[in-house]
Order: sequence, then structure tokens, then C-alpha cells
Amino acid sequence: MRTLYTFFRSSTSYRVRIALAVKGLEWEPRYISLPKMEHRSAAYMDINPQGLVPALIDGGLLLAQSLAILEYLDEVYPEPRILPDDPAERAYVRGLAQIVGCDMHPLNNIRVLKWLKARWGFSDDDTNEWYRHWIAEGLRAFEATLVREDRHGLYCLGDALTIADICLVPQVANARRFACDLAAFPLTTAIADRTAALPAVESVAPQTQADAF
Amino acid sequence: MRTLYTFFRSSTSYRVRIALAVKGLEWEPRYISLPKMEHRSAAYMDINPQGLVPALIDGGLLLAQSLAILEYLDEVYPEPRILPDDPAERAYVRGLAQIVGCDMHPLNNIRVLKWLKARWGFSDDDTNEWYRHWIAEGLRAFEATLVREDRHGLYCLGDALTIADICLVPQVANARRFACDLAAFPLTTAIADRTAALPAVESVAPQTQADAF
Repeated sequence: MRTLYTFFRSSTSYRVRIALAVKGLEWEPRYISLPKMEHRSAAYMDINPQGLVPALIDGGLLLAQSLAILEYLDEVYPEPRILPDDPAERAYVRGLAQIVGCDMHPLNNIRVLKWLKARWGFSDDDTNEWYRHWIAEGLRAFEATLVREDRHGLYCLGDALTIADICLVPQVANARRFACDLAAFPLTTAIADRTAALPAVESVAPQTQADAF
Repeated sequence: MRTLYTFFRSSTSYRVRIALAVKGLEWEPRYISLPKMEHRSAAYMDINPQGLVPALIDGGLLLAQSLAILEYLDEVYPEPRILPDDPAERAYVRGLAQIVGCDMHPLNNIRVLKWLKARWGFSDDDTNEWYRHWIAEGLRAFEATLVREDRHGLYCLGDALTIADICLVPQVANARRFACDLAAFPLTTAIADRTAALPAVESVAPQTQADAF
């Protein structure tokens, strides 16, 4: 049995939950509350010294960093694949996933928002402006790439679910939670909504998790 | 011939230059000045609609996002490999690379620093504090992971150069440029320095580039 250290609202945890669900892999949750700073507890830092969620224990192996976990899961449990076979197509879906994973989420995650408030005196309005700025910039890039490359079908690359879609769903869900204007990104949001409606994806949505509040 | 859109001081461009150099692949540079906002020019946005560097054109294929480019290069030009074969080891070096690529660089890149100053009124001192905060937090995680996993040798994973080392070098170079205190990260900085001293890596360092100033 594998163990996932997860927080319901963590979009990086959500990515990994989706990949596990899509592949039909069972896992036991260990809930790590980010608001309670449990990710910095001695007990958790002993498991994952990075002090971040998610972390996956699989066969005694500690896996950290969600994008690395998605790749690992696809290499070790290849059915169904969430990365295509062709190197050019792999680069394409990785690039899309990294718009979310490298250009959007890192700027808007809870540790950044908390520090903006605590150290830099950001108000709620300031924080919302910050959040929406990076959402708008990232989704602009995502939408422009989808339009320019024109390789989408039901999902970002044709009709097969990939890591691009898996990373997109939690980011779009968060954007809606922060009331971001998504009108300029119709293709991106349609793909996110289609992916989010898959039963496997729905089964691990934040509000389904036992630690949700 | 491949074409790399690069800025000498962009650490993500530097990652890709290192991988190309290590693999002995030739490339023609196209210099995109971030301070001059050339990455947002119509001409460049027409090439890479994400409006970010680096971008690599290889055989007519547009590749964006540096971590995706590193994986592509290793899949298409496998000698020498910059990712190991074993899935657990691949996950490990990807996770280390992503500490840099997802937890450090996105918070400290030039677009963020510029916006902190222009929109949020950060002084130079504020910006330096911001920069050093995320460097310290990221390198703490990196060092703790190296120590805990104890799989390092000459490089992060044994004695073979991987994407972890390739991503580390530009980040440590930037940390020094911002006068960050690196005393608490001796293992990490030793590996970064060892990697930076490789002739292939030295050959593409920022100060060697024709657009350096």
C-alpha cells in the first residue's frame, strides 16, 4: 500500500491524487494541514525534509515534488499512460504542465500568500490582485499555446488525458476559488472542466477529501 | 541546426545551454533581452506565445519550458544521459531539479522582481530580502534532501551529472550574485561548484555569452 501525504486544498497534492485515481492505484491518506503548519512539524520534516506536500511513499521509497511523482507513476504504473510516447509530444505536454507547475502555482501557493500578508503587509485585496495577476498571465500563456499549436481534442493533446490536463484542473479550480476572470481562456477552461468531470478526477476533488473544511 | 532563444542571465536559459553543451549539440543563439522586454515583442511572441525564454527550435519543433526541454534533449540525444534509467532515481533527480525549478526560480525571476518594484513599491533592500528568503528556503530543502538521502557523490546522485546538477548551477550562481549567505549549504554549493567547473558548463556560463553586459 502506498501512503500519500496530502492537504485537500493543495493543488499539487490534488495533481497526484488525480494521477493515482486515473491509474486505479490505491493509497492511504495522511492529512497534513498547511494552515496548521503541520508540514513544518518535526514529525513530517522527518518524513519529507523539504517540508512541503505532497509526498508519496511507494514501496518504502519517498517521493517528493508533484511533477516528479507524476512521471514516476507513469513509468512504474503505465496503464493508462499520462504521458505520450513521442518525445515531441512528451515535451509538449510537459511544457503545458510546467506553465502551471513553474509559472503559476509557485507564485500563488499558500506559503507565498501567507508571507505576503505577514511580512509585506498585503491586505486581502492586495493578495487577490497578486493571485489574479499570475493566474491571468499563466492562463494567457496556456491558452495562447493551445491555440497556436492546435493539437487539442477532448484534452490538451488530442483525446488522451495527460499530465497537462492533470495539472490544469487544480489550477483552474483555484482560479475560480479566487474569483479570477476566466473569460479570455475558453479553450483552457473547457478542457479543465471536461477533465474535472471524469469520475476518477471527481473522486479525489478537494471537497471529497476527509480533511476538507 | 537548432536555435536557442536565450538571455545570458536567465537561469532557465542557462540550464538549457548547459544541457546542449554537455551533450555536444550545436546551436545558434538568438538573444532576447529581458530588461528590454524583447520577450514580449510581437516578433518573439509569434515564435513562443508564452513570451518567456528559453525557447528551442529543433528540427522545426518549438520547445518551451526549460525542464521539458532538458527531458526532450535527453530522450532525443541520449549521449551522455542526464537522467538515470531507474524510475526511483529519475524521480529523485527530477525532484531535486524541481526544488530549483518550481520552488525557487519562479519566485525570484526577473518578471517577479520587476513587478514587486513597479507595482508593490519594493525598494532594493526589500527585493534583496525577498530574493534571499526564497533562496534560503529552497537551498535548505535541497541540502536537507541531499543529507537525508545520502546518495550524492561528485554530483547530486552519485558520480554522474544529471538534471539536478544542471538546474543547481545557475541557481547557486544567481544566489551569489544577490549576495545570499550560503554557509548553511556546504554540500549543495560544493556540488554546484564542481559542476560549474566542468569545461562544457563553463563554456556556456552567463559571462561567456555574446549578450552579456
